[in-house]
Amino acid sequence: MSTMKALVYYGVGNCAIEDRPMPQILHPTDAIVKMVKSTICGTDLHILKGDVATVTAGRILGHEGIGIVQSVGSSIKNFKPNDKVIVSAITSCGTCKFCRKGMSGHCVDGGWTLGNTTDGVQAEYARIPHADGSLHHCVKGATEEQQVLASDVLPTGFECGVLNGRVQPGSTVAIVGVGPVGLGSVITAQLYSPARVIAIDMDKNRLETAKLLGATHTVLSGPNTVKEILALTDGEGVDTVIEAVGLPKAFELCQEIVGAGGTIANMGVHGCKADLHLERLWSHNITLTTRLVDATTSQMLIKLLDAGKLKTDGILTHKFKFEDMAKAYETFGQAAKHNALKMLIEF
Amino acid sequence: MSTMKALVYYGVGNCAIEDRPMPQILHPTDAIVKMVKSTICGTDLHILKGDVATVTAGRILGHEGIGIVQSVGSSIKNFKPNDKVIVSAITSCGTCKFCRKGMSGHCVDGGWTLGNTTDGVQAEYARIPHADGSLHHCVKGATEEQQVLASDVLPTGFECGVLNGRVQPGSTVAIVGVGPVGLGSVITAQLYSPARVIAIDMDKNRLETAKLLGATHTVLSGPNTVKEILALTDGEGVDTVIEAVGLPKAFELCQEIVGAGGTIANMGVHGCKADLHLERLWSHNITLTTRLVDATTSQMLIKLLDAGKLKTDGILTHKFKFEDMAKAYETFGQAAKHNALKMLIEF
Amino acid sequence: MSTMKALVYYGVGNCAIEDRPMPQILHPTDAIVKMVKSTICGTDLHILKGDVATVTAGRILGHEGIGIVQSVGSSIKNFKPNDKVIVSAITSCGTCKFCRKGMSGHCVDGGWTLGNTTDGVQAEYARIPHADGSLHHCVKGATEEQQVLASDVLPTGFECGVLNGRVQPGSTVAIVGVGPVGLGSVITAQLYSPARVIAIDMDKNRLETAKLLGATHTVLSGPNTVKEILALTDGEGVDTVIEAVGLPKAFELCQEIVGAGGTIANMGVHGCKADLHLERLWSHNITLTTRLVDATTSQMLIKLLDAGKLKTDGILTHKFKFEDMAKAYETFGQAAKHNALKMLIEF
Amino acid sequence: MSTMKALVYYGVGNCAIEDRPMPQILHPTDAIVKMVKSTICGTDLHILKGDVATVTAGRILGHEGIGIVQSVGSSIKNFKPNDKVIVSAITSCGTCKFCRKGMSGHCVDGGWTLGNTTDGVQAEYARIPHADGSLHHCVKGATEEQQVLASDVLPTGFECGVLNGRVQPGSTVAIVGVGPVGLGSVITAQLYSPARVIAIDMDKNRLETAKLLGATHTVLSGPNTVKEILALTDGEGVDTVIEAVGLPKAFELCQEIVGAGGTIANMGVHGCKADLHLERLWSHNITLTTRLVDATTSQMLIKLLDAGKLKTDGILTHKFKFEDMAKAYETFGQAAKHNALKMLIEF
Repeated sequence: MSTMKALVYYGVGNCAIEDRPMPQILHPTDAIVKMVKSTICGTDLHILKGDVATVTAGRILGHEGIGIVQSVGSSIKNFKPNDKVIVSAITSCGTCKFCRKGMSGHCVDGGWTLGNTTDGVQAEYARIPHADGSLHHCVKGATEEQQVLASDVLPTGFECGVLNGRVQPGSTVAIVGVGPVGLGSVITAQLYSPARVIAIDMDKNRLETAKLLGATHTVLSGPNTVKEILALTDGEGVDTVIEAVGLPKAFELCQEIVGAGGTIANMGVHGCKADLHLERLWSHNITLTTRLVDATTSQMLIKLLDAGKLKTDGILTHKFKFEDMAKAYETFGQAAKHNALKMLIEF
Repeated sequence: MSTMKALVYYGVGNCAIEDRPMPQILHPTDAIVKMVKSTICGTDLHILKGDVATVTAGRILGHEGIGIVQSVGSSIKNFKPNDKVIVSAITSCGTCKFCRKGMSGHCVDGGWTLGNTTDGVQAEYARIPHADGSLHHCVKGATEEQQVLASDVLPTGFECGVLNGRVQPGSTVAIVGVGPVGLGSVITAQLYSPARVIAIDMDKNRLETAKLLGATHTVLSGPNTVKEILALTDGEGVDTVIEAVGLPKAFELCQEIVGAGGTIANMGVHGCKADLHLERLWSHNITLTTRLVDATTSQMLIKLLDAGKLKTDGILTHKFKFEDMAKAYETFGQAAKHNALKMLIEF
Repeated sequence: MSTMKALVYYGVGNCAIEDRPMPQILHPTDAIVKMVKSTICGTDLHILKGDVATVTAGRILGHEGIGIVQSVGSSIKNFKPNDKVIVSAITSCGTCKFCRKGMSGHCVDGGWTLGNTTDGVQAEYARIPHADGSLHHCVKGATEEQQVLASDVLPTGFECGVLNGRVQPGSTVAIVGVGPVGLGSVITAQLYSPARVIAIDMDKNRLETAKLLGATHTVLSGPNTVKEILALTDGEGVDTVIEAVGLPKAFELCQEIVGAGGTIANMGVHGCKADLHLERLWSHNITLTTRLVDATTSQMLIKLLDAGKLKTDGILTHKFKFEDMAKAYETFGQAAKHNALKMLIEF
Repeated sequence: MSTMKALVYYGVGNCAIEDRPMPQILHPTDAIVKMVKSTICGTDLHILKGDVATVTAGRILGHEGIGIVQSVGSSIKNFKPNDKVIVSAITSCGTCKFCRKGMSGHCVDGGWTLGNTTDGVQAEYARIPHADGSLHHCVKGATEEQQVLASDVLPTGFECGVLNGRVQPGSTVAIVGVGPVGLGSVITAQLYSPARVIAIDMDKNRLETAKLLGATHTVLSGPNTVKEILALTDGEGVDTVIEAVGLPKAFELCQEIVGAGGTIANMGVHGCKADLHLERLWSHNITLTTRLVDATTSQMLIKLLDAGKLKTDGILTHKFKFEDMAKAYETFGQAAKHNALKMLIEF
């Protein structure tokens, strides 16, 4: 077999499945993976809208999935053919200055490249660069549906939201926006046992899923949001606020509800600047963080999935066959209408 | 003696020395201190401009100084009459939730109260609340001139700038604005041995003092500032940027020069909001912090002063007798004209 | 009423309830508490055996309990009469060098003093020194039985075992010895979501309680203990080992099961030296810690009790009235025979 | 040229220079380096005594040096022929579970392998496995003599002693044993600005070098050592004690001088167990660490060498040509007699 089916991006608003040559090992550090499951990320929608300048016409999309290793390059130590693996959204060389600092998202020869600057995993086969640092062995204690979330949703929610947000036992956490990565934070915030996890969204359905996944309180976004949240914290404000929207208005809310000494962890992808209220916050002992996921915690999260310690119910809302990708994108593109969170793609 | 001389604030632009009743022990946790030396803080100028709403007419100003303990309340354990002490700008009860977290600047019964909500130390005598947590014993290895800087300049520069900025061995630090607290950061950043300390200011004189105090590079603020700083860091940006100005323009500069994974530690007092460029920084793994000084490190800094490990030359530029306070304020108010940094007041 | 009943230590093996003068406020920082519930600590048994040299004849025993504030000294800010409070095993002045470092267990005017160097809480009334830093308000979301564990068992298990042991999400924790404080670690280790919590003991009954409280695996101590534990960790050893026995043999086991890069957190009270196998461990990247409880996390743990996030079932095994203290001590002294963990004392 | 000169180990007490085939690239991750300078490590002496079981007859010795890259494997990204490089004592694959945790010393396909389980650098040419993670570019701001110390002495002294010992500004550090790695700690402890650095040794000459390199106090080991050190710390004990000897007696001293809340960082290679005085230390809030160097900080230390921020004078005491290796080993083997610290070998 020398060709395969792949979802190819042609330009704004335009992508389709086409036949492509089978990917080959190009570097000693590559692996070829036969995809078993994939998902669609919010970023894929941004690409289709033309928001991501690095993605050019002809690119195979996709950076989340699990599959079976077909072949490996000559310097691969950690994987061999027939290994079932989770593909990380982030490829990591392991030896550049950023990887050495734990900032694999900024890897000088990797980072978010799949479905961006190299061909991705919404295809029957994919070449994974720096496979030793970019794949993880599947485990037996969790379903494939759960493990596919370890590509991106769980490490992003955990690293950009929970770790950067310094969630601590007994603290109060607010997640502003509970789409897939926001829910990733709802799930993984509980790894540090906060006393309260407050989910905030405009969509009741998402709030219900948040509750199912462990949120102790939900707040429907509206004119009284700030008051309601402050009331939940005796007027003192929240210890950790996770921004999972990417809009100035959501970022504004974060600043209004964070308590003295608290942290705002920005996870949302922003398209424009926001106001920072230093006239009030300068003396408020605030920490504000931004982060591209590094996927350095994926191995640990997979271990917890294996041990049955992470609930993921309700995040995968729809299931499609690979040949129905167009429909999957359409459904995901109208998420509110379809009560859609993550689309599972099966090969 | 039942009266003393004190510098009293009467309202915007108006303060003068007048006779006041001697302060008395009001609580078991108080101490009365006879002042020996004081200094004027930038905040005192803000008060005179009417910028600090909590300061009302009739208030004795001042929150920096050293003196001799005259008497102590019944629960004071750490101090006794005739002890020579440094008065901390921050009074700290030690048992409230903020003090317990190391956030004494937010102490529910203290914080920055001296010369603000209680009478201060620009007076012959002062009542110091929560003296056990707000005074420090003077040491023999340093001059009084050095130790008076431990009231505010050194802990502020260290805590808000250096600690919050997470200065590390081998890193690059930029201090935007090298007035007194900026210089406090120049001095104390060196406690963590950065490879480069870059001082940035519009005033050549201040840059020279920064160099004297250990800055490895100085950059005169101008149209090429960003380029010059990036050139010093091989285009990668600075690890730690300390904002010591308090203006949107300075905060803008901080965002332009911070490298991926870097930290912006805001130390400046801001009167209005600033732009935060999340459209670029969202993926840049930035940490941004704000902080009111807590003075939790003062004891350690005094120990280093005692061991001769902190240079402070050139920060105290002018010396006045207490009766000439008006002139001291006037000189400090026109700092650029007089090449003024800190005014030393002697009683 | 000018006298009260109190349990007084007379010397080795000898204590009894007698009439004592009611305690009085001696310092502005004192509070008088009418006891409602107390418990007996393993340390109390050590005292009765004559192992604790600082306890002299005539001392009222006890350092765990809850009660009602009767009166407070003039500098108390956080409590007032009729407040229901948890008495911390550690009294803390809040302003000495140790308290300022979070080492309240070493407070120069406090630490473990109750029932040791000052009269304790196994009495109808007790004087609590440094009450602002040594009492905590009771909460409504938990029973008195649960809250009495916040005096000592929970903070000791958490601080000496879990925090010092650096328990992390996804890690493996072994607790060697699951008496009351070992169980405190079993409970609170889960605040950091380890993948595995292995309880080890010679007493099947205690292992069952450990399982009930969240241990994922139990190992009955025996000749194959090391093998069994290594088998649970793919031969790699445990990330965090908590020593909760206080004997050289238990400490030996800890060294045999800790993995490279792991931590041994010693919580046990040791009466003699132990072997440290540096000939093997020197290159094993081990961290070993010791700690006297500081009770700096009690407030947070109480918050989690209030939020219903800490299971405590099965730790309080026996209940006695205060007048039956002799019987309570006798039962606790023969713990294995009675399947005894903690004795609850009611006034 | 197809052969080269190399120092080969033949068995206990026996090594000599012989002709060996030129090393070749065996894996895509290899580099071949032409050696320019090398040094002898204390570990090399241990090998010759037969103490290191992993070193077998026929092995080329040596794990410290600088050289010129001759050729690189196909997956090497960071280096190319003619690059001047520092060879790290630790080779690191960058992708195994230990490298990912920063524990490269335990790399599953690396760690300390050079001159141990693979041929080393006391030869004209050497094959360096995992070169991208195991070499560092030489810098212009420091001499070759300084940079050769970045192979082992400086990262070992810094990581095992200073970082593990948690040296902090204003703290007191004692280094027990100031041979080469102990001096590495003396030098690098200053990166965190302790108030006091106390060097302890039985050799006056080494104490003098320690003083030259920044020790503030020196103590000649003797019957009053403990008293002298406690006197330097007002009886409170030392914050950080670094064991750089590897003998029970030295480890005993560490336990006697460490203060409450302090850290003992073991750096010495121990051949037998030691006593741990838990009967006293259990309540002393001690942290004790062990560590094999990981060389994860080498890049940072090289940056500081480049910036002129690390003194290294006096550590290289003797210089030999490669053909005189026998004499170099002999001199180093009788270090006290020759006032020898490090031997520099030139090719």
